[in-house]
Amino acid sequence: MNNRTTPLGVAVIGTGTMGADHVRRVDQVVSGARVAAVADPDEGRAKGLAAAIDGCAAHADPTAALDAPGVEAVLIASPGPAHEETLLAALDRGLPVLCEKPMTPDTAGALRVLDAEQRHGVRRIQVGYMRRYDTEYAQLKDVLTAGELGRTLLLHCRHRNVSVHSYFTEPMLINDSVAHEFDAARWLLDQEIAAVTVLRPTPSRLAAPGIGDPQLVVFETDAGVLVDVEIFATAGFGYQVQAEAVCERGTARIGDAHGLLTNTAGRWGGGIAQDYLARFADAYDREVQAWVDATRRGEVTGPSAWDGYAVAAACEAGVEAQRTGQRVAVDMINRPAFYS
Amino acid sequence: MNNRTTPLGVAVIGTGTMGADHVRRVDQVVSGARVAAVADPDEGRAKGLAAAIDGCAAHADPTAALDAPGVEAVLIASPGPAHEETLLAALDRGLPVLCEKPMTPDTAGALRVLDAEQRHGVRRIQVGYMRRYDTEYAQLKDVLTAGELGRTLLLHCRHRNVSVHSYFTEPMLINDSVAHEFDAARWLLDQEIAAVTVLRPTPSRLAAPGIGDPQLVVFETDAGVLVDVEIFATAGFGYQVQAEAVCERGTARIGDAHGLLTNTAGRWGGGIAQDYLARFADAYDREVQAWVDATRRGEVTGPSAWDGYAVAAACEAGVEAQRTGQRVAVDMINRPAFYS
Amino acid sequence: MNNRTTPLGVAVIGTGTMGADHVRRVDQVVSGARVAAVADPDEGRAKGLAAAIDGCAAHADPTAALDAPGVEAVLIASPGPAHEETLLAALDRGLPVLCEKPMTPDTAGALRVLDAEQRHGVRRIQVGYMRRYDTEYAQLKDVLTAGELGRTLLLHCRHRNVSVHSYFTEPMLINDSVAHEFDAARWLLDQEIAAVTVLRPTPSRLAAPGIGDPQLVVFETDAGVLVDVEIFATAGFGYQVQAEAVCERGTARIGDAHGLLTNTAGRWGGGIAQDYLARFADAYDREVQAWVDATRRGEVTGPSAWDGYAVAAACEAGVEAQRTGQRVAVDMINRPAFYS
Amino acid sequence: MNNRTTPLGVAVIGTGTMGADHVRRVDQVVSGARVAAVADPDEGRAKGLAAAIDGCAAHADPTAALDAPGVEAVLIASPGPAHEETLLAALDRGLPVLCEKPMTPDTAGALRVLDAEQRHGVRRIQVGYMRRYDTEYAQLKDVLTAGELGRTLLLHCRHRNVSVHSYFTEPMLINDSVAHEFDAARWLLDQEIAAVTVLRPTPSRLAAPGIGDPQLVVFETDAGVLVDVEIFATAGFGYQVQAEAVCERGTARIGDAHGLLTNTAGRWGGGIAQDYLARFADAYDREVQAWVDATRRGEVTGPSAWDGYAVAAACEAGVEAQRTGQRVAVDMINRPAFYS
Repeated sequence: MNNRTTPLGVAVIGTGTMGADHVRRVDQVVSGARVAAVADPDEGRAKGLAAAIDGCAAHADPTAALDAPGVEAVLIASPGPAHEETLLAALDRGLPVLCEKPMTPDTAGALRVLDAEQRHGVRRIQVGYMRRYDTEYAQLKDVLTAGELGRTLLLHCRHRNVSVHSYFTEPMLINDSVAHEFDAARWLLDQEIAAVTVLRPTPSRLAAPGIGDPQLVVFETDAGVLVDVEIFATAGFGYQVQAEAVCERGTARIGDAHGLLTNTAGRWGGGIAQDYLARFADAYDREVQAWVDATRRGEVTGPSAWDGYAVAAACEAGVEAQRTGQRVAVDMINRPAFYS
Repeated sequence: MNNRTTPLGVAVIGTGTMGADHVRRVDQVVSGARVAAVADPDEGRAKGLAAAIDGCAAHADPTAALDAPGVEAVLIASPGPAHEETLLAALDRGLPVLCEKPMTPDTAGALRVLDAEQRHGVRRIQVGYMRRYDTEYAQLKDVLTAGELGRTLLLHCRHRNVSVHSYFTEPMLINDSVAHEFDAARWLLDQEIAAVTVLRPTPSRLAAPGIGDPQLVVFETDAGVLVDVEIFATAGFGYQVQAEAVCERGTARIGDAHGLLTNTAGRWGGGIAQDYLARFADAYDREVQAWVDATRRGEVTGPSAWDGYAVAAACEAGVEAQRTGQRVAVDMINRPAFYS
Repeated sequence: MNNRTTPLGVAVIGTGTMGADHVRRVDQVVSGARVAAVADPDEGRAKGLAAAIDGCAAHADPTAALDAPGVEAVLIASPGPAHEETLLAALDRGLPVLCEKPMTPDTAGALRVLDAEQRHGVRRIQVGYMRRYDTEYAQLKDVLTAGELGRTLLLHCRHRNVSVHSYFTEPMLINDSVAHEFDAARWLLDQEIAAVTVLRPTPSRLAAPGIGDPQLVVFETDAGVLVDVEIFATAGFGYQVQAEAVCERGTARIGDAHGLLTNTAGRWGGGIAQDYLARFADAYDREVQAWVDATRRGEVTGPSAWDGYAVAAACEAGVEAQRTGQRVAVDMINRPAFYS
Repeated sequence: MNNRTTPLGVAVIGTGTMGADHVRRVDQVVSGARVAAVADPDEGRAKGLAAAIDGCAAHADPTAALDAPGVEAVLIASPGPAHEETLLAALDRGLPVLCEKPMTPDTAGALRVLDAEQRHGVRRIQVGYMRRYDTEYAQLKDVLTAGELGRTLLLHCRHRNVSVHSYFTEPMLINDSVAHEFDAARWLLDQEIAAVTVLRPTPSRLAAPGIGDPQLVVFETDAGVLVDVEIFATAGFGYQVQAEAVCERGTARIGDAHGLLTNTAGRWGGGIAQDYLARFADAYDREVQAWVDATRRGEVTGPSAWDGYAVAAACEAGVEAQRTGQRVAVDMINRPAFYS
């Protein structure tokens, strides 16, 4: 697929919790990319991260990072209010961008970004609504797109957090959490949002002072789908995101620990993989990644040659047991200390 | 973690279905590795794969591939009978190896490999029992290791395939399928297998001619745990691998589409993630990988700046609705053709 | 518990689908009651039912049925508009009443019934909100009452029907279906309903002409709990009633085919019975009822003496197998034709 | 269905835990039957039970109870060794019998019972294998009988108890617990059991002293189906009975808290009720039984006329909200003290 030889040089802007995690991801998880530069107002923090990565520059100024040697693309993970300036600078340089959500804190800034991108005449910006890459959301999207359930009529969503930080404010329920539901609904339905209503029960006594938590956010799309979102920031028991699409001929639900569940034609349930590659694809990816990582560290960590031998011995006994119908003892040498 | 600059050069030996999939995996999925050489008796096949990868040599002879420029590690995916020769050649060259299962088709070969590895004095070989890298198996291992359920007493396993190839033979039930159960049981329990019995019901009329399918393979470990494995190669409905550990104070089960389920103290159920990183870690990885892949192809594929704008507009309406308690219409510009 | 000798004589008023089912229930299912009279404007229908029941009178006039010999209680299953008259007549006679919902079609009639019952100075009327007797609803009520989840904040309800009759009207969504949700919420929360809002998505194309189906009915209780009800009368796939209480320290949900599920403290799941009486209580009830019914018909229908013998033979082999560790063949006589 | 006027007079033989529960069941739960006599060697115990039931005789001698006035059928719940004598006495008197399992403690006694019943020329005996009356077992039987899954090949069973009494012995694992599995397998498969093997893991450290618990009991039917039963008497976490039939075209499983689950054609899942009668049949039965019981006690316990009024008021607001699209407050009088 990639006929380029060299990995993509990425500048990561902002190295807080999310930015540092993206630095790790580009450096160690993602194939075909490398961190070419990092930027953070806390230059010491940026330098600390860069020091562990070969060929990675560190800057306090985002623009300087965009101009660092080898930078070919930008991943923006700075605070929302700082996004616009970096986005515009990246567009000026013709650099593709993955920008964490929100793209900008308000529509005014967003419109300026839209104008700039159109002015440059080519799409460069991807916004970080990562639910579109979640396995279950992708399954739900596939089911809705396939059309067998008919049109979607209602969408019931749940968004529950364990707790909130001390600096939490009520609008954050919308801007930080429901924002994901807005994008997910738009994407799942391929419709825009037309109007929003917020309903409030008596708040939980465990809610942060002054925060009306939980809330029921109801919104309508331009095609008349009604979406209700329970947003509950201090649910305590866990982080839980659920969605149920109610369609003309059935429902489809995700987020319940069972994968995608449907109700159709008198049956509820989910799908079963059809082969081992489908079932264990992630295991193969992780296996080879773990082997590569260990090898680069000079280590061997997985199933050993001893394991290979022991299974061969059990298989020999198994085939003999299969042939004879008898209980067959497994014949093995003692485990060498080398493999203990 | 990886303080090496350059990716690990991997020789992939064997380019059948599994080998070709590993070539794709090392080339496009895994971080920090590249395919430096491929080998296949069908040299044309090897060359076809190598042609799409920069700096990748192609050979008919596995040994020649091991000696190709830049090869630092070996992934063996050739047929089982060919493994031993390549393993020994890799050990001679001091190359780390990831070898697909079975390591060798029999114990005699396995013992020669053990001897060779010990003679070289350092562990180099990892065998491809990839279930150890499966999320659910890892969860089950964690639960058993944590010890809260007490010792494991019984292990009930199910291994169901849709169907078999025309060249399928009965011993393959053991060598291809139950082999995974042997390794998984050894790993989960940290015990060796002591004896095996195979029980046979009246075969399914849908089984391949001459194949007694399904079978119930019962084996005992050296610590007296009893493991029963339903192996059913022509189950038809899907590919399904399940395991249930019955312990002194509860049970733990995987493979039922609900993640890890436990029975303990009057409750059945599973765990809930505690934060969004735990819930959506894979989505973030896939998001950034998809962005890197698209960028290297010169494309933009994910949520666009328009999506960023539309969500900002919905959030503004949402915060206003939250503040006023009223239904608030979302105020948006028309979608520019540029973003359609 | 019942120190009365004779069964309770019940007059069933109305013998449509529901009334006829109640006649069957009182006659054949319920212990300690008998049908003493039935009434239906279609007197032939009433007589047909009465003919099969010893000592059962049949009338066209409900009042005449109340006055029939042996009537001690009344079960009203006539159409809603006819309830008030029969309720008042029953109160005049001091007869206890089980009245199918709705008690009356409107509040004006309901207030007259309240007045009459109070005037008689003793409670006589039970209204047929039978969800309070459903196992799952009772479990949900118990969980909420126990208080471990804290106060309830939100209640999400789903009420889905396969399809509607040709004479269906939109108010029936409220009066026939949501009425159950109103009562269930009142009972679960022990609160009254303070206000109601109905939200409408674009209707399903499979909805009956002129019916805006589905609808999202949102209501608030006098303690500020917010309840949202999806009412979907033409859902097609099945009849489904679900409820999820969102509380301060967790959630509890019923109607998903798993029994009561809770989310608490990082775990989702349900309870496990603690003994065989809890697990199989219903089976024992049905067993003895089936035996009594068959015996009264002069039949023997359940497990036979042959079954008793065959299990004894298997047990003897099982105990021997347990003792010897060997496979033990079951020794049985041939099955006599008498038991075939 | 029952064209008899009077209830069936039942003699209950044995009034230990199970017998006393059957007395309660016949007296208060089952329709169309009454307890005409009870017998127990502890005559005081028998008299205590009889005193609360009108027309119920009490005896120390089972035979005397069979001859008591009004006895038309016998329910035997005495200890197993006492069954044979009472069975033969009941056959002599031509009385139908429901006999708790085991019918007799051994095959010798069972054969004598078979002989006696055949000699009398008409079937009179039903044995108390009550799983056949369990909803889930009945569903599993229906699925297997329907034939869509093809022939059954394997049956995996789990039988877990919380703990055992101090007088528990190892053969009780077979005679008390696996006996149910023997009968259930025979009934589900319509086959006899041909041979039994018992396999033992290292026992749980929480097992009773001298009891090898758990055990894996494997048995074969005369048609070659292989059945494996995990019997675990000190499982601790709960009482759990599960069964999974592995068939030629899919599997069907019960006992997992989800009702009947099947794996077929790439899907796992269960059924959805098609109407409210199917979903709430038990609730209706319980509702009317509760009403009858309360009425006979002179009480009113269920939803009151106030509930009927309150729901009517909410419905009026709901229909108005539906018509206007507005939030409509519910208009109610204050709750009279009479209804508090």
